[in-house]
Amino acid sequence: MEEENKHPTPLTQLGEFGLIKYLTESIKLNNSSSLKGIGDDAAVISSSSEETVISTDMLSEGVHFDLLYTPLKHLGYKAVIVNLSDIYAMNAKPEQILVSIAVSNRMSVEALDEIYEGIQLACEIYGVDLIGGDTSSSLSGLVINITAIGKANKEDIVYRSGAKENDLICVSGDLGGAYVGLQILEREKSIFEGNEKIQPDFSGKDYILERQLKPEARKSIIEKLKSVGVKPNAMIDISDGLSSELIHLSSQSNCGVQIFEDKIPIDPATISACEELNINPTIAALNGGEDYELLFTVPIEDHSKIKDIKEISIIGHITDLNSGNFMVASGTDSLIEIKAQGWQHE
Amino acid sequence: MEEENKHPTPLTQLGEFGLIKYLTESIKLNNSSSLKGIGDDAAVISSSSEETVISTDMLSEGVHFDLLYTPLKHLGYKAVIVNLSDIYAMNAKPEQILVSIAVSNRMSVEALDEIYEGIQLACEIYGVDLIGGDTSSSLSGLVINITAIGKANKEDIVYRSGAKENDLICVSGDLGGAYVGLQILEREKSIFEGNEKIQPDFSGKDYILERQLKPEARKSIIEKLKSVGVKPNAMIDISDGLSSELIHLSSQSNCGVQIFEDKIPIDPATISACEELNINPTIAALNGGEDYELLFTVPIEDHSKIKDIKEISIIGHITDLNSGNFMVASGTDSLIEIKAQGWQHE
Repeated sequence: MEEENKHPTPLTQLGEFGLIKYLTESIKLNNSSSLKGIGDDAAVISSSSEETVISTDMLSEGVHFDLLYTPLKHLGYKAVIVNLSDIYAMNAKPEQILVSIAVSNRMSVEALDEIYEGIQLACEIYGVDLIGGDTSSSLSGLVINITAIGKANKEDIVYRSGAKENDLICVSGDLGGAYVGLQILEREKSIFEGNEKIQPDFSGKDYILERQLKPEARKSIIEKLKSVGVKPNAMIDISDGLSSELIHLSSQSNCGVQIFEDKIPIDPATISACEELNINPTIAALNGGEDYELLFTVPIEDHSKIKDIKEISIIGHITDLNSGNFMVASGTDSLIEIKAQGWQHE
Repeated sequence: MEEENKHPTPLTQLGEFGLIKYLTESIKLNNSSSLKGIGDDAAVISSSSEETVISTDMLSEGVHFDLLYTPLKHLGYKAVIVNLSDIYAMNAKPEQILVSIAVSNRMSVEALDEIYEGIQLACEIYGVDLIGGDTSSSLSGLVINITAIGKANKEDIVYRSGAKENDLICVSGDLGGAYVGLQILEREKSIFEGNEKIQPDFSGKDYILERQLKPEARKSIIEKLKSVGVKPNAMIDISDGLSSELIHLSSQSNCGVQIFEDKIPIDPATISACEELNINPTIAALNGGEDYELLFTVPIEDHSKIKDIKEISIIGHITDLNSGNFMVASGTDSLIEIKAQGWQHE
């Protein structure tokens, strides 16, 4: 599915130092806090009155991505996004990343180039500097680890632990799309592996495939909340699925949650793919993961400030600890307990 | 060579969240700058008047370590040391690390425990806090990525690029040991693989094996230089071998280097193993790597301040750019050009 390179250059042709030079010579630093980027034992970030927020994530071939259907440029882009999402989820502004990549010697220079193109594109779009990293070989699959560094004023940082009773529970964007996108990719892969002459059929699936292969981090939500003067009490990004994140929020905030099934935002394209795949869309939203949307709680007094923001849905409210974590099922009064690993109970 | 666990617990028994809780519940934060450690989307480090210095390194099974002869606790320890060494090489003080680990599901909880024991031991000894990370599964080998964060006053940071003509070139400790330690391990491995009844013979090899399996970072050198009032003009840690690092220093500082073969510090245990393995000790020191010693240059006026520091050897001096990079061979006046990848010319 990925286009083949006509004349791939073996990595060994450049050597380790040559490769690092080749990959990094086009990198520019844009943030004034990036004092020293690639090229020394460590990078240097300038001191500031703001706190430093830092997060790291590792993506491994065969576990987090399948090179059969993952364009390398998208992979590099997504590896950055996953980390920026964590920084935004602290209500902070990402400014730098460090990238470690282990690649098999069988990979070509051009392939590695595509990964870095995706990394640099994400850096450009989100205004982040690539300041360091490590490139080494791997005996087996491709592994990418990214560390993202951001800044925030101490009083602006939002933890998972700050939710208060009666807070409104909000999510950005829509959920479940990345998961069903993955199911479509896996289905087409198994058809392709059965008969390589059959071309994959992705018509009408652009939205959910993009949700899976090239997600975005919700910088715009952070900016919008700031512009209307709302600071969430608690926030987390949705990487493992809404259920897991609600449980993280409630357990760290010592509270319960109540959400309403019919308030969970799900895109029509996601619903249509769910029908095709015979998946319950609510289950995809609750347990699917990889949406990289933000889940946050705001004081009920802020309702009027957020209710008209198009990309924010109010899905429920925070309850007391003894009330537990529940979802009110659509069109009924019945309560369904929210569990972290819902799939195993289906 | 590694003791087998009697009753290994499969990782799947704990689940991802259970595993993270299990591995992280014993972690304490000691640096006042570590505002928030593991448990949120990102860690938080307090603002300060000092600059932030940050470095990342990835170790992959089969490339950087062989689990047949690498005790897991040592591996965790070394993975931290490799990164702290980079922070010290900036003349900074490491304060935090983030750890990403990808493990095969075949690995037991006890095995992962040993890796973390090593990581935490290094944290204790070097006064560093483990503040975040990512634990995921790997389809193939074990991969560990560590990001280290340190602090330094702006005027104290030492780059690779600051060497000045006539500076004394110094190295800490001794060189080549880690490399010959690795050769001994590889030799015994091949004997063991030929006949598993033959026990490996490591007698008299403690020093070089420790250099390879459980290296230390040169915190003491940084402290000693500070205490005698010497700030190096340029500094780099020796991870790839003295030759490579000298070339990095000279190219980034726009200068040449001249060192003396008979001044390169090599431990008697290293020399003895070199004889056994039929390796030229100078070659081991120049191209071996993984010694994690510091290579630095100091103004010639500081000679009297450093000449009596036991663990520092003066091996040469900085020349002008046109003079190139040379080593004066022992007992002769002949000059040997220093090349980055010396092995290929032997």
